[in-house]
Amino acid sequence: MTRTGSRGETATEIPAGEAPAVILVEPQLAENIGMTARAMANFGLSELRLVNPKNGWPKKGVREAASGATHVLDCATVYTSLPEALGDLTYVLATTARERGQMKRVFDPEAGMAEMLSRAGQRTGVMFGRERVGLENDEVSLADAIVTFPVSPDFPSLNLAQAVLLVGYEWRRASGRARLPFSGEMLSPPATRAALLTLFGNLETALDAAGFYPPEKRAVIARNMRDMLHRMAMTEQDVRTFQGALRALNRSRKADGAP
Amino acid sequence: MTRTGSRGETATEIPAGEAPAVILVEPQLAENIGMTARAMANFGLSELRLVNPKNGWPKKGVREAASGATHVLDCATVYTSLPEALGDLTYVLATTARERGQMKRVFDPEAGMAEMLSRAGQRTGVMFGRERVGLENDEVSLADAIVTFPVSPDFPSLNLAQAVLLVGYEWRRASGRARLPFSGEMLSPPATRAALLTLFGNLETALDAAGFYPPEKRAVIARNMRDMLHRMAMTEQDVRTFQGALRALNRSRKADGAP
Repeated sequence: MTRTGSRGETATEIPAGEAPAVILVEPQLAENIGMTARAMANFGLSELRLVNPKNGWPKKGVREAASGATHVLDCATVYTSLPEALGDLTYVLATTARERGQMKRVFDPEAGMAEMLSRAGQRTGVMFGRERVGLENDEVSLADAIVTFPVSPDFPSLNLAQAVLLVGYEWRRASGRARLPFSGEMLSPPATRAALLTLFGNLETALDAAGFYPPEKRAVIARNMRDMLHRMAMTEQDVRTFQGALRALNRSRKADGAP
Repeated sequence: MTRTGSRGETATEIPAGEAPAVILVEPQLAENIGMTARAMANFGLSELRLVNPKNGWPKKGVREAASGATHVLDCATVYTSLPEALGDLTYVLATTARERGQMKRVFDPEAGMAEMLSRAGQRTGVMFGRERVGLENDEVSLADAIVTFPVSPDFPSLNLAQAVLLVGYEWRRASGRARLPFSGEMLSPPATRAALLTLFGNLETALDAAGFYPPEKRAVIARNMRDMLHRMAMTEQDVRTFQGALRALNRSRKADGAP
C-alpha cells in the first residue's frame, strides 16, 4: 500500500491493526515524539497513541524531528488517561528499565515480540514511559508483561525513540517481514572445479616460468596458494578475470624477453 | 570495569578490542556523532573512529548529544583517510541502504554480527557513511561484506545513530552478553496441584452457596473457571491471596444473613 497523500490515512505496507500500537505516556519533548514516529515508520508501525503529552499537542518541532514520518504523527491519537488509551487492546507489554517488584513475566525485545505475534489477529500495544522517570508501577500493572532491553550495565539508559526502534525492529523480524532491501546474489554462478583446476595450472605454470618457487618448497607453497584461491569462492566471471590478468602478465613478461 | 575518571581510558565492561570499532566516514552533525557515542555505550561498544569529520573535530554540541557517553567521545580517534582508519582491522563490514552492484555478501545485522563474532580475537570494525549519501562504492570496496537493515520499503531511511544502535544491539546479543538487567522470577514458588484443587473446591462451594450456577450449566461453568484459574499460573502466594479474598467475601456474605 503506497501513500495516497490524504491526511489521516495510514500509509504503510502493513495492514492497519496488525502491528502493535505504540503508547507514549506523558511524553515531553517534540524531538522524542518525532523521532519515535520515524522509528515506527522505519519498521512499519503506524499507530501512535499519546497519553497526556506534556505541554500540549501538537508540538512545535515534532514534524521536523519525524523526518518524513509525518503520516504517523497525522494519525496519532491523544488520550487523557492510560486505561482509555489501552481500552481496545487485548495484549499489552510495558517497557521498563528497572525492576518493579511486580511478579510479571519479563521479556527481552525478541521474546516479547514473538509473544505478541503469537496473538496474531489481536489488537496489541507496547507502552513507553516518560523520558525521565519511565512508567509508574500502577501503569506497568495495566500491562500483561514487561519488555526490557539487554543494555550494558555501565550505560543502561536508552532514549525513548531508540527503545521504540528496537521494539519495532524485533516486531518486524518476528512478523516474518524483515526482508533485506537487497541481497548479495552473485551475478555470475560459482566456478566449476574444472575451471578452477585450469586456473591453478595456468598460475603455477606462470610462477614456475617466473622462477617464483624455491624448489624445496614448491609443493607446500602451491598448495597454500590453492587454499587461498579456494577461499575466494570464485565465480565463473572471477576465474575469467583472473585468467585474463595472468595472460596479460605473461604477455608482458615474454615481451620483456622472459621464457 | 568501572570508569576511573581519567580522560582517555576506556570504561566499559567489555575488554578493549573485543567489540567492533565503529568507523564514521565524514560525519557531519555533532548531534549524530554524540548520539552514536550514546548508542555505542548502550551496548558496550567504546571504540569510535572518525574519518574526516565535516567542519572539524571536536564539535560544539557533541558532548550534550552523547548524554553521558562522553568516555566514548574522549577516546575517539580521528583519521584523514579511510584506509588508515581501517589499517589494523582484519574484518570489516560496511553498512549500506542501497544495492551497490558489488558482488559482496550481504548480511542482516544479526547474521553480520554472528559472522563478526566468528572472528573472536580479531580486530573488527563496522563502517557507517555520511548522513546524506552514505558510503561511496570505493569505500564499500574496502570492506569484507555488507550489512543492511530489514526496514520498511515505505520508509527505509535510518539515521546514523539508529543504524549504530541496531548493530551494537545485535553485536551484544551475538556475543552472549545480552543479559537482561532483571528477570521476572517469581518471589513465590508455583502452587502445587493440591493447593489449586483446594482453592477450586472452596471457590465452587462458595459459588454454590451464593446460587451462582444455573443448575444445567454448573459442570461446564465450573470447568471453564478452573481453566481460567489454571491460566493464571498461580504461585503459592497467589493461592493464599485468593483464598483470603474468598474467605473475606464469605464472612461478609454470611454476616448479611446468607447461608
